[in-house]
Amino acid sequence: MIKDKKIIQNEHVGIVQTQTFTFDQLKLESGEKFGPVTLAYETYGCLNKERSNVILITHALSGDAHAAGVHEGQDNPGWWDEFIGPGKAFDTDRYFIICSNVLGGCKGSTGPSSINPKTGKPYALDFPLITINDIVCAQKHLVDYLGIEKLLSVVGGSMGGQQVLSWLVNYPNSLRSAVPIATTIKHSPQQIAFNEVGRQSIMADAHWKSGNYYDAVAPTKGLAVARMIGHITYMSDKSMAEKFGRTKKDIAETFKFNPLEVEHRRGSTAAPGSLPLTGFTADFEVEGYLRYRGDNFVKRFDANSYLYITKAMDNFDATANRPLQEVLQGSSVKVLVISFKSDWLYPAYQSKEIVKACKLAEVETTYCEIDSTYGHDAFLLEVQEESHLIKHFLKKVFYAYEVTGEYGA
Amino acid sequence: MIKDKKIIQNEHVGIVQTQTFTFDQLKLESGEKFGPVTLAYETYGCLNKERSNVILITHALSGDAHAAGVHEGQDNPGWWDEFIGPGKAFDTDRYFIICSNVLGGCKGSTGPSSINPKTGKPYALDFPLITINDIVCAQKHLVDYLGIEKLLSVVGGSMGGQQVLSWLVNYPNSLRSAVPIATTIKHSPQQIAFNEVGRQSIMADAHWKSGNYYDAVAPTKGLAVARMIGHITYMSDKSMAEKFGRTKKDIAETFKFNPLEVEHRRGSTAAPGSLPLTGFTADFEVEGYLRYRGDNFVKRFDANSYLYITKAMDNFDATANRPLQEVLQGSSVKVLVISFKSDWLYPAYQSKEIVKACKLAEVETTYCEIDSTYGHDAFLLEVQEESHLIKHFLKKVFYAYEVTGEYGA
Repeated sequence: MIKDKKIIQNEHVGIVQTQTFTFDQLKLESGEKFGPVTLAYETYGCLNKERSNVILITHALSGDAHAAGVHEGQDNPGWWDEFIGPGKAFDTDRYFIICSNVLGGCKGSTGPSSINPKTGKPYALDFPLITINDIVCAQKHLVDYLGIEKLLSVVGGSMGGQQVLSWLVNYPNSLRSAVPIATTIKHSPQQIAFNEVGRQSIMADAHWKSGNYYDAVAPTKGLAVARMIGHITYMSDKSMAEKFGRTKKDIAETFKFNPLEVEHRRGSTAAPGSLPLTGFTADFEVEGYLRYRGDNFVKRFDANSYLYITKAMDNFDATANRPLQEVLQGSSVKVLVISFKSDWLYPAYQSKEIVKACKLAEVETTYCEIDSTYGHDAFLLEVQEESHLIKHFLKKVFYAYEVTGEYGA
Repeated sequence: MIKDKKIIQNEHVGIVQTQTFTFDQLKLESGEKFGPVTLAYETYGCLNKERSNVILITHALSGDAHAAGVHEGQDNPGWWDEFIGPGKAFDTDRYFIICSNVLGGCKGSTGPSSINPKTGKPYALDFPLITINDIVCAQKHLVDYLGIEKLLSVVGGSMGGQQVLSWLVNYPNSLRSAVPIATTIKHSPQQIAFNEVGRQSIMADAHWKSGNYYDAVAPTKGLAVARMIGHITYMSDKSMAEKFGRTKKDIAETFKFNPLEVEHRRGSTAAPGSLPLTGFTADFEVEGYLRYRGDNFVKRFDANSYLYITKAMDNFDATANRPLQEVLQGSSVKVLVISFKSDWLYPAYQSKEIVKACKLAEVETTYCEIDSTYGHDAFLLEVQEESHLIKHFLKKVFYAYEVTGEYGA
């Protein structure tokens, strides 16, 4: 995908390395004490001497610490690479960016696939139930460890946006601004329902075995179906129509990237040819695309992490049933809320609820609903307009600090 | 549910029986000749001597021939019972109603679970790929067998509506009116995608075994997940919020009706208690509801039928890529198109495409978008407004015939 590394060095943040930070104990929201906890994280740009230019980026369900640049010897840029770099929305010439893999994840941070020091085996379902607040509490440990007293901003979309709201509610004195994107104060029953069928799909996989699959075959089929469901909800009716239409796909291609079918056919006890080639194969491009995305996902994601993280999203309620405006009263954090017109998974009305609560609490708040057809994926794809909004918002907040020097206020 | 059968006799069509009709051979759209074919069907009301009062009702994905009344010794009324009976939308004092289970189904009509006379075993995936046009062609055989030359109307919602459109296009001289409800000329990529993940979920179930599960355990977990996905798409964000909110459910209740979890726990190799009770159980009412619906469905539906029927829906294109207005040119069939405001699975714009094509073809067409919050399920639930529309439309068509006697015109 990326051809010339020299060009990248100029446009991107270049070669990056994931680092880790381990601390002994985290007090979970449930009261349980859990540890040790390792967080994988990356940083981009340079910390200024006032330590006033730090932005924490929080990732979505399937994201990780690798938000920008490329790893040595690899080609794939970070998940928000188009937003992070010199002159970009998160301008690395100006700001110091941190992104860490969430607690419960599977990309370097402690999660269900990590070794439980008490047993020498992966935690599996002995991993404690975690919440979005726990994820954020672990991030606070990392920020403290890095010596940052006050963040310039916390920014994230989707589940990343839930983390932003958790920061806003639980650590109002540790940040100067917050940018929750395409997110919600709490999941609606429809959002819970989509996560629930994903979980059911994983748990229905015979290989799941109550989560104890680490020394055997992983429940990849169930996880792939969960991911496919997710992908439909991340796109819009319109973006799918624009991308695929009803184009029929090359049957040969189906077998190239469809592990379910290939495996099914290889392991089939049925007479050859009993499965009609034009039958339950991916006739339409959209079917092939979903299978491809499902297949790719299982190579890089742990099914138990999927269960724990989606459950944390569903259980999240930014204010534990108190009105958000009550909780935010007196906060001096500046807020930019962004939603996308065609996002039906995290519809604009949910972002407007955040805005309304902020306004009622007299928190300085800007809101923009970007006119996009990309659906929920827009927070990753609407580079130009979203960058413009974020860039100018951050500049304003940063400049206000530079002038007033209100550090710690 | 139904307490007093005497009351039912007055309000409902009473005790009904499913009948069957078998014919030797059906020429499929693919060119293949398939047979014998049995269709299960029910009728309500009386055929008048002119045979001019016949309405064919076509069912949706999970429907069957049992549209109204109750079966001897059973309590559950037919799936459209509130619409069919004396004085109802389909007034059995006036009309003769037919409803048949689709070809490929599993409720009495020939489908993948039927015995293949050549092998003495269920067809499984040796069942031919069928299309909506094949389903309708089989219905035409039944209608001919019953001696009906011209139907007063063909009416159906969702996949039933696809069948209505197939009748309209392929047998314009065999019907006087058509009522496609909450349906589409052809599936969008999003509609295909939702069906595809349902199919993938079934095929991912280890018990599916390329469809050869009839002498063993059925792929109920995969089918249950497919049904859960379906249910989310049949409701609306709003109707789910109204029905469930974020109410937490009684944990004990979870195990009462959740076969996945019960089975998982019973067969678990993990130490007792290793699955946190508050972890991946159905914490929210909406989760319990979905599991319950998934569980109920697998008792009454065949997984291979689900594969074949959803594929027929996805492949359906009413006009094989010709503009519908061209195909309908000169048709004297009267059309009533109904859609529902909150239906995001078969959005109103798809119904408007049908209306536009009918208008361009100068076909007499009425359109109504009913203001409902029920989502796609509205075609089963919006009894009052929908009944009113259908009742008056049918009366008008029936009365026009009575006056002009244009039989066979």
